[in-house]
Amino acid sequence: MEPQARPRRVTIVDVARHAEVSTTAVSKVLRNAYGASPEMRAKVRRAIDELGYRPNAGARGLRGQTYTIGVTLPDIRNPFFPEILDGITTSLADTEYQVLLGPGCNGEKEEARVTEAMIDRGMDGIILVAPISSRAHMERVGSAVPTVVIGRHGSSPAYDTVADDDVEGAALVVGHLAGLGHRRIAHIEHHETDPTRLTEMPNARRADGYRQAMRQHGLEEWTDVVSTSYTQDGGYRGTKELLARPVRPTAVFAGADIVAMGVLEAVAEAGLSVPGDLSVAGYDNTTFAAFGPISLTSVDQGGREMGQNAVRLLLERIADRGRRSAQVTLSPTLVPRRSTARLTE
Amino acid sequence: MEPQARPRRVTIVDVARHAEVSTTAVSKVLRNAYGASPEMRAKVRRAIDELGYRPNAGARGLRGQTYTIGVTLPDIRNPFFPEILDGITTSLADTEYQVLLGPGCNGEKEEARVTEAMIDRGMDGIILVAPISSRAHMERVGSAVPTVVIGRHGSSPAYDTVADDDVEGAALVVGHLAGLGHRRIAHIEHHETDPTRLTEMPNARRADGYRQAMRQHGLEEWTDVVSTSYTQDGGYRGTKELLARPVRPTAVFAGADIVAMGVLEAVAEAGLSVPGDLSVAGYDNTTFAAFGPISLTSVDQGGREMGQNAVRLLLERIADRGRRSAQVTLSPTLVPRRSTARLTE
Repeated sequence: MEPQARPRRVTIVDVARHAEVSTTAVSKVLRNAYGASPEMRAKVRRAIDELGYRPNAGARGLRGQTYTIGVTLPDIRNPFFPEILDGITTSLADTEYQVLLGPGCNGEKEEARVTEAMIDRGMDGIILVAPISSRAHMERVGSAVPTVVIGRHGSSPAYDTVADDDVEGAALVVGHLAGLGHRRIAHIEHHETDPTRLTEMPNARRADGYRQAMRQHGLEEWTDVVSTSYTQDGGYRGTKELLARPVRPTAVFAGADIVAMGVLEAVAEAGLSVPGDLSVAGYDNTTFAAFGPISLTSVDQGGREMGQNAVRLLLERIADRGRRSAQVTLSPTLVPRRSTARLTE
Repeated sequence: MEPQARPRRVTIVDVARHAEVSTTAVSKVLRNAYGASPEMRAKVRRAIDELGYRPNAGARGLRGQTYTIGVTLPDIRNPFFPEILDGITTSLADTEYQVLLGPGCNGEKEEARVTEAMIDRGMDGIILVAPISSRAHMERVGSAVPTVVIGRHGSSPAYDTVADDDVEGAALVVGHLAGLGHRRIAHIEHHETDPTRLTEMPNARRADGYRQAMRQHGLEEWTDVVSTSYTQDGGYRGTKELLARPVRPTAVFAGADIVAMGVLEAVAEAGLSVPGDLSVAGYDNTTFAAFGPISLTSVDQGGREMGQNAVRLLLERIADRGRRSAQVTLSPTLVPRRSTARLTE
């Protein structure tokens, strides 16, 4: 499967000789490791460009690296993930690392298959985006290869985490809706049964945050959680259920923008209007939420920053696999739009 | 970067011994090649499951394969691509091949970098989805590794193609709008300058198909093409331009659903309504088009079938690299929805 009849490949040794530095220095620049001065970087970059050097993943570079970072995505349709991915790819743009995505990780079995495939293929590091795997599986991955997990709370020595403060995010939504006069504020959550995951998953934290905030605003008696899934269909089914209540909610906090899409679909189907009959808020501040004709109030959890933080942690881990594990939590912000309005009744 | 302290890896030889077949037979089943009977497949699958065999990409199997298929995507945000990807992954689900996606191929330079990275990493085959590279680049890729190109017309001995009949698709849209009484039907196209690409790119064919169909319906004098790009922003800018015309069009054919998103945004911003003031049609029949509150008339080019056809062609090419190149063209269908309506004036 190797290209035929190519000219001799430029190696890291050629680059070092051309740049008049050591191969270790070249390796450091390629890995974007600490300890390479800006001048050194410039020298090596110039040599790389002049010689047309590409890290040879087939034959492997020094230290057995493949210069490949694997990223798993549970659902390519969820418009939040491109934001994270942008943060990852732009952060890696100045390194020699190539990102390869494992698609279709929408189940524990699929997630295991893709992560094993990535380990088999000698990836230098793995970023798991919103995984649903058990902690035990993630620790197996983390002990095989430097790993950062995005969108999962809890700490483990085997991997680093980057997450949004989901309790705070849910409180922002409830506070916003309560401030608009709503009391019957319902929440559509992702159904979660596994007890370990319950303490770690963003969806569970958002549902917790919702309950806490309802209490804090004296709205405990109106607490109403429908348990479906973080998909468009989950939002659709959840809304059907809510609209069938003897007394309907006046506002719905969907746990994710993709859930809110299903809410809007069900509301339109029922001949009701947003925000006239129902205020709707999502979570993730996707391009869909920002889309003019939709204009969905949402929570921005800074997908790009999450991706950037994950890359920083991963490159540190690759450089020093024994280092202490780190957890980064980012504060969300509320982006109010036309889908939520003052209650008039 | 190899996992530490694992039990000895199960090899293809173990699988063959356990299944009581030859290693060649196992290899055939793994590659989903012709010449493996259903009984043989069942035997080998059972042995694979019982032994927990995973093709070892690091060490490579027989024939030097990595059991990895690289797929390039120009824009992960375009909601058409998940359909193609679904077709690819489901078709490969019964094989040992793992799909890895190269993200961010939204320029010739990026496309070249990602495809080179895939060749370097010994991918067994590459599927280029809607590439913008020159034919020369695609032929270089195709001569290095079995390659199938989705969404590109024209034939080359170096790769196979799977494309939609874009001229027919454009004619379906114009015919539909003309049938609703529209005459001032404008088109937003993707700006294309490269003369070779002009004959090969779906966007150019759609613009051609639009012009031809306008002639056929006796609407030549109303032909009005705005040249931006196949992005949401392209649709937005194109619509701003159209709405500033002394006499506005009554219908817009956006070359892609993602372009139509920008059209809807600009129309809403101008305080106009769809389809009251402007009928809007897209192309790709994405989940966005099907989304109730949007309900966008669109052309279905069968993304799943495109993905499935690409996999079939690719597996054939991997099995027989010398085989004649093939071009598959699929017929599109129109999906009329609420965004287009009869002209009343």
